[in-house]
Amino acid sequence: MRLILTLNAGSSSIKVGLYEAGAAGGLGEPRELARGQVEALGAAAVMEIDAGRARARVEIGVADHATALARLIAGLQPLFAGREIAAVGHRIVHGGADIDGPRLLTPELVAELEALTPLAPLHQPHNLAGLRAAMTAFPQACQVAAFDTAFHRGHPFVNDTFALPRRFYEAGVRRYGFHGLSYDYIAGRLAQDHPELARGRVIVAHLGNGASLCALDGGRSIASTMGFSALDGMPMGTRVGQLDPGVVLYLLEQGMSGGEITDLLYRESGLLGLSGLSHDMRVLLATDSAGAEEAIAYFTFRLAREIGGLAAALGGVDALVFTGGIGENAGPIRARALERLGFLGLSVDPARNAANAAMIHAGPVPILVMPTDEERVIARAAMALAP
Amino acid sequence: MRLILTLNAGSSSIKVGLYEAGAAGGLGEPRELARGQVEALGAAAVMEIDAGRARARVEIGVADHATALARLIAGLQPLFAGREIAAVGHRIVHGGADIDGPRLLTPELVAELEALTPLAPLHQPHNLAGLRAAMTAFPQACQVAAFDTAFHRGHPFVNDTFALPRRFYEAGVRRYGFHGLSYDYIAGRLAQDHPELARGRVIVAHLGNGASLCALDGGRSIASTMGFSALDGMPMGTRVGQLDPGVVLYLLEQGMSGGEITDLLYRESGLLGLSGLSHDMRVLLATDSAGAEEAIAYFTFRLAREIGGLAAALGGVDALVFTGGIGENAGPIRARALERLGFLGLSVDPARNAANAAMIHAGPVPILVMPTDEERVIARAAMALAP
Repeated sequence: MRLILTLNAGSSSIKVGLYEAGAAGGLGEPRELARGQVEALGAAAVMEIDAGRARARVEIGVADHATALARLIAGLQPLFAGREIAAVGHRIVHGGADIDGPRLLTPELVAELEALTPLAPLHQPHNLAGLRAAMTAFPQACQVAAFDTAFHRGHPFVNDTFALPRRFYEAGVRRYGFHGLSYDYIAGRLAQDHPELARGRVIVAHLGNGASLCALDGGRSIASTMGFSALDGMPMGTRVGQLDPGVVLYLLEQGMSGGEITDLLYRESGLLGLSGLSHDMRVLLATDSAGAEEAIAYFTFRLAREIGGLAAALGGVDALVFTGGIGENAGPIRARALERLGFLGLSVDPARNAANAAMIHAGPVPILVMPTDEERVIARAAMALAP
Repeated sequence: MRLILTLNAGSSSIKVGLYEAGAAGGLGEPRELARGQVEALGAAAVMEIDAGRARARVEIGVADHATALARLIAGLQPLFAGREIAAVGHRIVHGGADIDGPRLLTPELVAELEALTPLAPLHQPHNLAGLRAAMTAFPQACQVAAFDTAFHRGHPFVNDTFALPRRFYEAGVRRYGFHGLSYDYIAGRLAQDHPELARGRVIVAHLGNGASLCALDGGRSIASTMGFSALDGMPMGTRVGQLDPGVVLYLLEQGMSGGEITDLLYRESGLLGLSGLSHDMRVLLATDSAGAEEAIAYFTFRLAREIGGLAAALGGVDALVFTGGIGENAGPIRARALERLGFLGLSVDPARNAANAAMIHAGPVPILVMPTDEERVIARAAMALAP
């Protein structure tokens, strides 16, 4: 069986997955052999490897993407057992307005993706750094890109545009939507495990350090709370979420530079900014302070408001799915957001919610908690496109 | 009976109302004697006066606020019948974070309102120009301000803040909400005409050349789609409405200046930008073109989405009210937005909707069409505060 490596390179972390391709013809499911990640790139980086029975945790000091990838490969080497990596699948945040699925990475496509960097300045360069590191490390492997934007490319025009003069839409100022690999995975799981729900109107809340919601109609994304950049919609760990554009104009008037405002909105806002304490919802839930309480109140209020907005986009809601680190594990967050949504038929069973059960609803509309698996979606893409 | 003048001075128009104060003690309703307005200030201005049986329309050429006000006063002079104006009531867009009702205009307050100009750069200076013109024209009159922000000052924290570091909230970067005079009027009419609805959860859509929605809980505003500036939320005639703040950062990166982006978002976007045709919904509804259709589709989609979001903020909706030029007169817009909202119990009766009837619902949740009257709210304020 062929081996597939997945690579998810962010600004300060790099995650790899090692898979064995499924049945011949690329139609089976990839089988996960191991996962590894390096966190805190550029500082005191720590590598973790999880290969089922074998686990390792190593401090590797300051490392860039290429070094971290080399260490991860060395750590996974025993599992290769002399076999070659047939394909490397890459998570790429931005695929632009046209790409609606995974693609084989040709030099032309890489150049196109580099040209999209201004659309995702804080993500795309790291994705591409990971890609370059992998091309050096596995020159013989086929390189495949799976895009966070691709799953949303079928949005109707009203969910794809802003009310700007048309030339901006043509120039790429659109509501791309992100977290598409996660939504792709959830849509697939729904189709498999709950086919009747999957045919309906489903809102998926991907709530992690990044957070967005997606409206699925018959399994297809028709709207997302994330827009042009990874800033819009839900407040996040350090990102502001929904913001009156007039605030940006005001801060400019007040003498802040574009770079300072970018730092403010991406790195100092969200849960961290509101609480003054932490970007981490686990810390906030464990802290008894006015700041923590206000950050949680804001997060859950905006979550309810976004669910209401997407319900309108769908014309109603047949099921709600929570996923991502917060979505899968933070019962109090789910419960508090849903307090306001009884009018949509959404209410939680307290015991099942506290247990992070797979189904947590008490009302007529199913509410599911589903672990997401973006790496698996990347592996599937690599397996499908590798010659 | 004392006479009261109301003054609503915008960037290119000035509206006055002449009222006779109601019963002694200021508790009665002001009685409207006449209305006048000058449109197209700074260009080929036209003055219109409507005093019931007496109507006039005069071209007055290029005029500034003081000239226009003088012309309007001269036009209304026959109605004064030798009596003095006891109070002038002013519409002031921005009252800041603390002012929650009308105020007597003292020199200190005027200085405070001038200091708020950076928060409403396109409205506040015109309001204050009107105020100065009135203080010159009626030095003996008491001057009263009625604020568009005041009605929203009771918003809970989650509807008042953005997810920015707390110092920005303290410095005034908040979701002020606007169109408060209109919502105040509608809340009063509801309490009078539909007291049972007024006690419940009501969404009011003020849709004119400017547009926003307000969530009323028991007659009090708890949320608005407009935020810090008059840009956010609904797309408007030429204003963009909801926009990913990342778009502003991107346009800066692309070399546009803050001033150019301000012009773009306030003056070239919204219905005008999307349609490429007109800022005027009446023109778009009468035009058979792809641009007009897309602008209407976007406007009605965002309207539905905001209603869904505010329903979540309220925990459900007991009534929906349309007001403003579009809200009161554009049946096709109301019908199209409500197509998606049957799940909220909202649906229109086509015949009543086409007739702009006072109640247009076919479903269980009442949908009302109510003319707004911001001038009357200003007159009430002036009557109540004049010594």
